[in-house]
Amino acid sequence: MPKIFSFVGNSNSGKTTLISKIITELKKRNYTVGALKNCSKGFEIDKEGKDSYILKEKGADPVLLISKDNIALFRRNNGDEPKELIKRYFHDRDFVIIEGGKGWNGFRKIEVMGNEKKRLKLDDKPIAIVSDVENDTDVPLFKKDDIENIVNFLEKEDG
Amino acid sequence: MPKIFSFVGNSNSGKTTLISKIITELKKRNYTVGALKNCSKGFEIDKEGKDSYILKEKGADPVLLISKDNIALFRRNNGDEPKELIKRYFHDRDFVIIEGGKGWNGFRKIEVMGNEKKRLKLDDKPIAIVSDVENDTDVPLFKKDDIENIVNFLEKEDG
Repeated sequence: MPKIFSFVGNSNSGKTTLISKIITELKKRNYTVGALKNCSKGFEIDKEGKDSYILKEKGADPVLLISKDNIALFRRNNGDEPKELIKRYFHDRDFVIIEGGKGWNGFRKIEVMGNEKKRLKLDDKPIAIVSDVENDTDVPLFKKDDIENIVNFLEKEDG
Repeated sequence: MPKIFSFVGNSNSGKTTLISKIITELKKRNYTVGALKNCSKGFEIDKEGKDSYILKEKGADPVLLISKDNIALFRRNNGDEPKELIKRYFHDRDFVIIEGGKGWNGFRKIEVMGNEKKRLKLDDKPIAIVSDVENDTDVPLFKKDDIENIVNFLEKEDG
């Protein structure tokens, strides 16, 4: 099973930018990486009018698109547990990077802070903080551009 | 394993419209249905600028989006055989309806004709034709709006 880390933070805290850099660094170190995004507000990827949308609206589930280079799968969420989905779709990856998932318990969380020095209320205490403003914490603290040490930390962390 | 049918025809022959109606009818008859679209020209679903696109560009593979209602999975196509993908993603469905896939051998094909009375060159002979213009064929021929009989035919066809 992969090493799984969940990067949580308010919107506009810079999660996507941070995660993008971390994925780039992990790839540079030759790891396989899956990414998972918790879209609590939903996502609008296959739009009205698109064939995939039409097929889904008619009741096809799942809908699979295949091109020479890419595969896309759309399906209903039947209340699947994130852990179950990770096992199904990411079982052979070295790392899984989750964006969001504040409410998903049981994942190692790394808190990403924006410019406001205000911590999230989390059930799981974060194992590290990434922030350019925080300086008073009892867990490892990384600056946002310190990608190398963040990835060193992820490498060393054991499940 | 599901019953699998591949609807092939030139672009603008009306495949998506036909398939949409067939899926609606299959759902009415209480079947589970998966749909697969062969996008030979590629598909543009997660667009530049979208988070899912960014994560994929950085090398995350797969990228999974989860919302309360829906799940979307994006991955590279590593030369997976369509049959393998069907087994993985559609194994528990009653029917799989393929749109396109002229070049995929070994699937039961139903030829969909537009207004031109010109047949496709297929390696597999189609098991039926859906057309409002053809009248000279040795396989079952259905009009495009005769959804009920098309679906009766799919129900009766054995693998």
